[in-house]
Amino acid sequence: MIKKALRKVCVVLVDRANYGRMKPVMHSIATHPDLELQVLASGTMVLERFDLPVRVVKQDGFPVNGEIYIELEGSTPATMAKSVGFGVVEFASAFQRLRPDLVLLIGDRYEALAAAIAAGYMNICIGHIQGGEVSGSIDESARHAITKFAHYHFPSTKRSAEYLLRMGEHPETILTVGCPSSDIARNLDRKLRDEIINGRGGGARIDLDHPFLLVVFHPTTTEYGGEPVQMQQLLGALDDLKRQTILLWPNIDAGSDHVSKAIRVFRDHVKPCWLRTLINVPPEEYQQILATTACAVGNSSSFVRDASYFGTPVVLVGNRQEGRETDVHVVAVPPEKEKILTAIREQLAHGRYPASDLYGDGFVSDRIADALAKLNPYIQKRLHYIYQANGNGAATGEQNGNGEALPNRSVTPWKSLAS
Amino acid sequence: MIKKALRKVCVVLVDRANYGRMKPVMHSIATHPDLELQVLASGTMVLERFDLPVRVVKQDGFPVNGEIYIELEGSTPATMAKSVGFGVVEFASAFQRLRPDLVLLIGDRYEALAAAIAAGYMNICIGHIQGGEVSGSIDESARHAITKFAHYHFPSTKRSAEYLLRMGEHPETILTVGCPSSDIARNLDRKLRDEIINGRGGGARIDLDHPFLLVVFHPTTTEYGGEPVQMQQLLGALDDLKRQTILLWPNIDAGSDHVSKAIRVFRDHVKPCWLRTLINVPPEEYQQILATTACAVGNSSSFVRDASYFGTPVVLVGNRQEGRETDVHVVAVPPEKEKILTAIREQLAHGRYPASDLYGDGFVSDRIADALAKLNPYIQKRLHYIYQANGNGAATGEQNGNGEALPNRSVTPWKSLAS
Amino acid sequence: MIKKALRKVCVVLVDRANYGRMKPVMHSIATHPDLELQVLASGTMVLERFDLPVRVVKQDGFPVNGEIYIELEGSTPATMAKSVGFGVVEFASAFQRLRPDLVLLIGDRYEALAAAIAAGYMNICIGHIQGGEVSGSIDESARHAITKFAHYHFPSTKRSAEYLLRMGEHPETILTVGCPSSDIARNLDRKLRDEIINGRGGGARIDLDHPFLLVVFHPTTTEYGGEPVQMQQLLGALDDLKRQTILLWPNIDAGSDHVSKAIRVFRDHVKPCWLRTLINVPPEEYQQILATTACAVGNSSSFVRDASYFGTPVVLVGNRQEGRETDVHVVAVPPEKEKILTAIREQLAHGRYPASDLYGDGFVSDRIADALAKLNPYIQKRLHYIYQANGNGAATGEQNGNGEALPNRSVTPWKSLAS
Amino acid sequence: MIKKALRKVCVVLVDRANYGRMKPVMHSIATHPDLELQVLASGTMVLERFDLPVRVVKQDGFPVNGEIYIELEGSTPATMAKSVGFGVVEFASAFQRLRPDLVLLIGDRYEALAAAIAAGYMNICIGHIQGGEVSGSIDESARHAITKFAHYHFPSTKRSAEYLLRMGEHPETILTVGCPSSDIARNLDRKLRDEIINGRGGGARIDLDHPFLLVVFHPTTTEYGGEPVQMQQLLGALDDLKRQTILLWPNIDAGSDHVSKAIRVFRDHVKPCWLRTLINVPPEEYQQILATTACAVGNSSSFVRDASYFGTPVVLVGNRQEGRETDVHVVAVPPEKEKILTAIREQLAHGRYPASDLYGDGFVSDRIADALAKLNPYIQKRLHYIYQANGNGAATGEQNGNGEALPNRSVTPWKSLAS
Repeated sequence: MIKKALRKVCVVLVDRANYGRMKPVMHSIATHPDLELQVLASGTMVLERFDLPVRVVKQDGFPVNGEIYIELEGSTPATMAKSVGFGVVEFASAFQRLRPDLVLLIGDRYEALAAAIAAGYMNICIGHIQGGEVSGSIDESARHAITKFAHYHFPSTKRSAEYLLRMGEHPETILTVGCPSSDIARNLDRKLRDEIINGRGGGARIDLDHPFLLVVFHPTTTEYGGEPVQMQQLLGALDDLKRQTILLWPNIDAGSDHVSKAIRVFRDHVKPCWLRTLINVPPEEYQQILATTACAVGNSSSFVRDASYFGTPVVLVGNRQEGRETDVHVVAVPPEKEKILTAIREQLAHGRYPASDLYGDGFVSDRIADALAKLNPYIQKRLHYIYQANGNGAATGEQNGNGEALPNRSVTPWKSLAS
Repeated sequence: MIKKALRKVCVVLVDRANYGRMKPVMHSIATHPDLELQVLASGTMVLERFDLPVRVVKQDGFPVNGEIYIELEGSTPATMAKSVGFGVVEFASAFQRLRPDLVLLIGDRYEALAAAIAAGYMNICIGHIQGGEVSGSIDESARHAITKFAHYHFPSTKRSAEYLLRMGEHPETILTVGCPSSDIARNLDRKLRDEIINGRGGGARIDLDHPFLLVVFHPTTTEYGGEPVQMQQLLGALDDLKRQTILLWPNIDAGSDHVSKAIRVFRDHVKPCWLRTLINVPPEEYQQILATTACAVGNSSSFVRDASYFGTPVVLVGNRQEGRETDVHVVAVPPEKEKILTAIREQLAHGRYPASDLYGDGFVSDRIADALAKLNPYIQKRLHYIYQANGNGAATGEQNGNGEALPNRSVTPWKSLAS
Repeated sequence: MIKKALRKVCVVLVDRANYGRMKPVMHSIATHPDLELQVLASGTMVLERFDLPVRVVKQDGFPVNGEIYIELEGSTPATMAKSVGFGVVEFASAFQRLRPDLVLLIGDRYEALAAAIAAGYMNICIGHIQGGEVSGSIDESARHAITKFAHYHFPSTKRSAEYLLRMGEHPETILTVGCPSSDIARNLDRKLRDEIINGRGGGARIDLDHPFLLVVFHPTTTEYGGEPVQMQQLLGALDDLKRQTILLWPNIDAGSDHVSKAIRVFRDHVKPCWLRTLINVPPEEYQQILATTACAVGNSSSFVRDASYFGTPVVLVGNRQEGRETDVHVVAVPPEKEKILTAIREQLAHGRYPASDLYGDGFVSDRIADALAKLNPYIQKRLHYIYQANGNGAATGEQNGNGEALPNRSVTPWKSLAS
Repeated sequence: MIKKALRKVCVVLVDRANYGRMKPVMHSIATHPDLELQVLASGTMVLERFDLPVRVVKQDGFPVNGEIYIELEGSTPATMAKSVGFGVVEFASAFQRLRPDLVLLIGDRYEALAAAIAAGYMNICIGHIQGGEVSGSIDESARHAITKFAHYHFPSTKRSAEYLLRMGEHPETILTVGCPSSDIARNLDRKLRDEIINGRGGGARIDLDHPFLLVVFHPTTTEYGGEPVQMQQLLGALDDLKRQTILLWPNIDAGSDHVSKAIRVFRDHVKPCWLRTLINVPPEEYQQILATTACAVGNSSSFVRDASYFGTPVVLVGNRQEGRETDVHVVAVPPEKEKILTAIREQLAHGRYPASDLYGDGFVSDRIADALAKLNPYIQKRLHYIYQANGNGAATGEQNGNGEALPNRSVTPWKSLAS
C-alpha cells in the first residue's frame, strides 16, 4: 500500500512574538495525520543580539528547515526596506528548496511580507493568520498587502473577518478562527518562577511577591525620528513612579536603535534601581509575565491581544496600535510623560480586569490545522467584487451558477470543509 | 526673494508599456511650475535584450536619474520573486539618494511593487496610476498590494475607483482621472510609416497597404508551465490563417523564455513567410500599429485599454486579462487553436469598432500633475473602514467630527484640491 | 560498528565548460570510498536561455544539491559585478545548509570567485583546479584572487604550479596533477554522430563527411564595448571563407549581448547558407566536435586546452587568452578580418597537429579525488614568504624547526600524502 | 579656454580606522589641482550602533557621495560572507552612478574587498594602500585578493613592496610610499583632553594624570567560536591587574557579538570600577589616546602600525596580527590570562620605546595624491611573471623591447612619474 503524501505546510517565524503565537499551531500541524510541518526561522529569531530565539524552537522539538538572515544593520527606513528585499530573495531560495504545498504566515511584519511576496510569485498557496486588523506604523500597509497575496485567511476577530470580506477577499477563503495566542493563554500555568525574571538579563532584582510593571516600547516606523523623545517621555514617567519594572528591549524596526540608545543613556545617567532589562523570553514565560504584571506599559500588540485573556491592565502608549480592536483593559495615551504617569496610576488603582475572549477562545490551533488539511490550494486570486452585484455588497455571482460561466474559475475553496 | 522649493516627483518606469502610458504624465510634470521630475528607469527599460527602451526616454528629453538593474536571469517563478527582492533593495538606494517628495507608479508589474515597498518603508508618499483594476496572473495580487501601500490613487475607470473605495482606501485619496494612455491616443498622428515596421526586427516584409495582424502574447505567471502549449495553439491558428503578422517578443515575466522558445522553434521549423518579429517599439509608434492593425491577437493589456480608443478589433487569448473591464471591441477566447482562429476571422469580418472612452478622455495627464502639485503628502495609512459605520458601507466618521477625536489623524488629503 | 563519516566535497559548477572538465572528477569523488559528493549548479547551468545544462548533470546520475540563480540581466560590467555579489550571497546560503568539509572550484569565472569568497569567509577549506594560469579579460584577476582564498591548488601545468609557488602559496598545498579535461579526451570515442550537430540548434545542415569549422567567441570584458567590431571582423572572415561552420553562442560575460546581437544582425542580413548555430552541447559531444573540426576559431579556453590533446588546428582571436600557455596547434591573431582569414587558411592547409600533453596526461581525476580524501583541511592561510629567507626564493623556515616556533601554525598539509 | 577635466578619485571608507588613516590622503586629494575627491562611506561608518563615524567625515568638510549599508546582522561567518555580497552589489551601483576614474582602497576588510571586486568587474582602475602585508584572520586572504584586482599599489613598508613584487605585480605599479597614518602621527598634538575620554561612553572615570591601559580586541574570524574564551582570558588578566582601562568595543567581524557579549557579562558580573568603554573615537583623538596610553593591549592593527610612531608599549594578543611586521615596542602573547598579565606588567615596567618609522615617515599622503594625478589608468592586469625569464626571478622581458611585441600591452604605468 502506498503511503499518502502529506501536505507540506511551511511556517515562517520572524521573531519571538511570532513564535509565541504560532507554537500551538505548529504543534497542531506537527501532530496532524495529513500534514507535514516545515519551519523557517528568520528575522530576529536567528540573531544573537536577540538571544537566538530559534534555539527555543529547537528545544521545543520542532524541525527548523532553514535559518535565514535578512536584517540589514542600520535600523533606518532605508535598511528596513532593504531587509524586505533580502527577505524576498532568501525566502525564494528556501521555498525553491523546500517546495511546500502551503506557506503559513502570521501578522504584519516586513519579514512576513517578504515571505508572502516570495510565495506569491512562486505560485505557492498562502495562509495568513491575523489579517484584517488595523494598526499604526507601516505594519498597517504591510498587513493588508499580505492579505492581497494570501489565498486563505485566519482572522482573529469578527471585525477582522468582516474587513477581509469588504476588502474583496473570497468569502469562502475567510475562516474566523480566533487568535492562536488564546490557546497558550487557556493552557497556561500562570505561576511565574523567580529565575525567569532574575535568572536572565541585567539590572535590578525584581521581587515577584510585589507588583511590578512590564514595559515594551517598539518604534512606530511612520514616525521615524520621533522615537527618542517618545521613549524619554515614557522613561520619565517610569522614573517618577519608581515602581519595580521589567523592560524588554525593542524589536528591530527602523528607529529601534534610537529607542535602545534612549534606554542606555537613561540607564547610564539615572542608574535606576527599579529597572531590570531583558532581551529574550520564551513564549510561555512571556505569557506568564504578561499574566502577572500589575500593569503593562508601551505599545506591543501583545498588550492588546494576549493581555486581554488575562485581564491585565494596559497603558497603550502612542500610535503603533492605533485602530486595533481593544477590550476594556486597555487605556490609550499619547507618548507624553504626565499622561502616561496618570494612566499607569489609574490602572494600578483599578487592578486586574475580567478575562476577554475578543481575540479567541483558546481552541484555535486545531481549527487552523484542520483547515490546512482540508482546504483546496489554488493559485490565481481575483478581487471578489467582480462576482458580486455592484454597490450594495450582496454576493450574487457564484452560487447560482454564473460562476461556472467564468473562464478559469479555479477557486473552489473550502469545498471539502463544507462536507 | 527666495525661490519656492519644487515638489520632487519620482516617476518609476519599468518597461516599454509603462513609458508608453507615462510619457504624457511625465511631460505634464516636467512643465508644471510647482513640480520637479525625477525618473528612474528599471526592469526591461535598461536591457539590451529589450533594445534599451531607456534610450527613447532620453531622446525625448527627459532626465534619467537612475538606471536600475534588477532582473535576475531565469524567467522562472523563483527568479521573478528574487527580482522583486533586488528591486526593493535597489529602489531603496535610489530613493535614499534622490529623496523624492512623491513616488509615482503605474500598473501592476513586480518592479512597480518593489518600488512601492521601498517607498512605503521609507515613509515616502506614493501615488499610483491604474489601481483598482482586475486581471489574471500574479499582477492581480501585486496591483492590490501596491494599492495598500499607495497614499493616492489615480484610477482609470469608474469601476476601478469604486473598487478602491470598497477596498478601504480613503475616499479623498481616490481621484478618478482616466488612463493617461488616452492622452496619447487623442493626440496621435495615426499614419504608420513603413520603416517603423520594416526598418527594425526580422522576418517577412509587411505591406502596410494591406491588412495585418498584431500579436503580443505574455506568460500568465499563475499558469507557469502552460505557456508552450498556449503559444503553440496561438501560432497554430496564425499558421492556418497565413495573414501577414507583426509579432512582438514577450515581456520578462516568469515563463517568457518558454514563450520565446516556442516562437523560435516555430520560426525555425515552419519558416513562416507571413511573420515579422519586433523587439521594441517606441510608445507613439506602438500606438500607431495598434491603431492600424486589422486585428490584435494575444493578451497585452494594451489590447483592452489602448485599443479601445481606436476601436481596434481584438482577440483576447487566455486568462491574463481575465476580469479586466473591456468594451465591445474585445472577443475573449481560451488559448485553443480553433477558437482563436474562428475569433480572428470574425473580428476581421467585423472590422473596426467605434472609439470608446471607457479608459479615459484624453485629458488625463494634466489632471494628474495638478493633483500631484496640490495634494497633501502624508505617511500613515489606515484602513478607512474604522472611520465608517460597520456593515452597510456608508461613511459616517470623519465629517461629523468623530475623526477629530482620533489621535494622529494626519490625513487631510485633497484639502487644497477642494478649495 | 560505527560507520566513518565521509568527507563532504562540494563541487561548484557554473557553466557547460565547467561541467565538461569536472565530470570525470565528480565521478572519481562519487566513487571514492572516503568522499561524499555534493554538487551546486549555478551560473548559466540553470538557465533555459543556455538550454539548462544542469539537466545533463542529473541525467548523468550526479546529485544536484542546489540550483542557484545569480545572473543579473544586462550583460554590462555593472550587472556582471552585481552577479558576483548575488553569487556570494547565494553560495553562502548553500554552504550554510550543506556544511561541506571542502569546496572544490575550477577556473576563473566570476561565479567561481563568488563561491570562493563565500567559502573563505565561512571558514570552509577550498580546493582550486586550474590556478596559476595566465589570460586576458577580468578572469585574469579573478583567477589569482581565487588562488588567494584557496587552501589547496590543483594546477594543470608545471608553469602554473611554479607561478602559484611564486605567488606565495604554501608549497605543500600545490599538487600538479594536470587538467581533468585530459581524462575526457583520453577516453573519448571521437566518432561524431550527425544528430549531435544537426539534431539541435538552427541554420544550415552540416555535412560531417566534409571539413567544418567550429567557432566560439566570448567577450573580453576588459575590452567592453569593442565586441561588436571584433565579432563583425570574425564573421566577415567567415563570410569570405564560406566553409560550413558550427557557431556556439557566447557565454554570459559582460558584452555577450553585443556579440549575440552582432551574430543575429549578420544572420538576418547575410543569411549565410554555411552557418549552423548551437546553444548548448553536452561535454563529451563538445569534445567530439572539437576533436573533429578542421579548425577551431575564436577565443574559448578549450581551444588552448582541450584542443591540444586532439591536435586540432586553432586560430585564437584577440586577447581573451593572451598569456595562456599554448602548444604548436595554436596560431594567435588580432581580431582583424584579413588576419583571421589568412590564419584559418593556413591552419586548414596545415591540418591536424600531433597530440600534446601540455595540459595533462588523462589520469588526473583520480589524483584529485585521492588528494581530497587525504589532505588536511585547514582554515588560516598566510603568505608563505614569511617562512622563507628573503629574496632568493629558497624555502628555509619550516623543515628546520623554525616553523614550530610560530604560534598557531595549523598548516600541516599533505602530511598524510607524503607517507 | 576650456578647463581640464579633473581626475575623479573615489575613496572608499568602511570603518573608523579606515578614516583615521585616509584622512590626510583625502585632504591631499581634495586640495590637489588635478584631482577631484569622491567619498563613499560604508560598513560601520554609517551605523548608529557605531556612533555614525561618517558624521565626523562631514564635519571635517569632506564630501560624502554615498552612504552605503551592507552589513547583514548576525555577526556569523555566513552573514559576514553575505555582507561582502551586498557590498559588491551596492558599490557597483555607486560606481555606476559616480563613474570615478580611480577607486582608492585601503587595507583588508571585507567591505574593501567588495569595492575592489565591483570596481574590477566594472573596468575601473584601482589603487590600493597597505597591500603586501601579512596577518591572521580572513583579512590575510582578502588583502591579497584585493592586490590581485588592484592596478596600483601603495605599500606601507619595504617588505610589503617586495612581497607585492614577488606576487607577480608589475614593478612599475608598486610605489613604496609608507603608511599615511604616519602623517597623522607626525602632525599630532598629543595632548589628550579629559572630555575626549570622560565626555563619551560609559563606566569608570579615567584620570589622565595617571597611567591607563588601552584595550581593543577584535575577533579573529578564522578562529570563529573561540572569541568568548579569548576575551574572557584577556578580561581576567585585566581584572587581576585592576589598572584604569579604556576599552573600545570590537568591530563588526564574524564573532564580534561573542566578544561584546563577553564584555557585557563581565561588566554585569564583576562591575569593574577600573573600566571605561567607548564606542567611537574620531581619528586624531584615537591617535592621542594611542600616543598617551601606558600600554595598548589587544589585537588592533593600529597597535602594530600607528603605535610604532609613538613608541607605545604594546601587548599583542592572539593570532589576528600574526605575521605582520612589528617593531620592538610589540610583545606578542597567546590569548592566555597569565601570559597576557605578565606581558602587560613587563611593558608597564619598560615604559615608552623610541619612535619607529617602520610604517612611514609622515610625508606619505602628498606622495599618494601626486601619484594618483600622474599615473596612467589601465584595465587589463596580467601576472608579471610571463614577462620574466622563468625560474630565477630575473626580469627580462619588457626593457629589451620584447614587451612591444606582446599584443595589447596597455600597461605603461608610471611613465609620467619617471619624467
